Amino acid sequence: MSEMPLTFRLANEDDLPHIVRMLADDPLGAAREQYEDPLPESYLAAFGAIRADSNNELIVACLGDEVVGVLQITFIPYLTYRGSWRALIEGVRIDARFRSRGFGKSLFEWAIARSAERGCHMVQLTTDKLRPKARQFYESLGFVASHEGMKLKLVAN
Amino acid sequence: MSEMPLTFRLANEDDLPHIVRMLADDPLGAAREQYEDPLPESYLAAFGAIRADSNNELIVACLGDEVVGVLQITFIPYLTYRGSWRALIEGVRIDARFRSRGFGKSLFEWAIARSAERGCHMVQLTTDKLRPKARQFYESLGFVASHEGMKLKLVAN
Repeated sequence: MSEMPLTFRLANEDDLPHIVRMLADDPLGAAREQYEDPLPESYLAAFGAIRADSNNELIVACLGDEVVGVLQITFIPYLTYRGSWRALIEGVRIDARFRSRGFGKSLFEWAIARSAERGCHMVQLTTDKLRPKARQFYESLGFVASHEGMKLKLVAN
Repeated sequence: MSEMPLTFRLANEDDLPHIVRMLADDPLGAAREQYEDPLPESYLAAFGAIRADSNNELIVACLGDEVVGVLQITFIPYLTYRGSWRALIEGVRIDARFRSRGFGKSLFEWAIARSAERGCHMVQLTTDKLRPKARQFYESLGFVASHEGMKLKLVAN
């Protein structure tokens, strides 16, 4: 397609309402998120904590001035694998109005390159077994479903 | 059993050789780790990065003065779930000489309580599908294998 290329940058506070709208616009996210104007304070607090931590990057994909996707990368130092860094990716969304255009693939390729640039030897993520298409998408990028992703909720939802 | 109670604390640099020995003493770990005297510098660098990051805690379980287990907790702020913190647990080992005594359960219960204390709403981990007993262990603690744990290696092993 002959259209503007995607660009990628750290999210800023002005992006937050749109990011939360994307997170909420999903069958699983709808039950978890609270997209309101003004946004619940808890989102602003979380954004502040992410921005203050040099090992967390909240990345948005933009088409011109418009935010069309988001994900968060956490860079983690581990002793395992002879002392190595890993990248953990969470909170991935592409705006519903911009799906099926390869933007998810581009955003992930950018995030994988960023992880390599930060010296990570591995990128990992978990994907809900209720999203079989997401697993196929990650497999198409080279991810292997070698592990069980296990969760323990400490508070209801 | 009438024996000393386990205690839990942050690992220090003197614990490192024993921790790496535990990480290497495992069919999967043996291929990944390099337990030598002196330790490869990469372990010391990783330990320094972990200790410098207030959102990472390398925890050891001790029986008296002896380290019998280890795990790492990473506390991560997310926008998802209305802006919330999660705990990610990795690099779990109990010294082979001290297995089947409930120490893994005690270490995890401590880590879960620590995660709650840090305000996390969820604890998560991935476990290799080649370790079916580990999955059963985590299920016994309340973890649910709701997700696929997907990994992409950027460098060979």
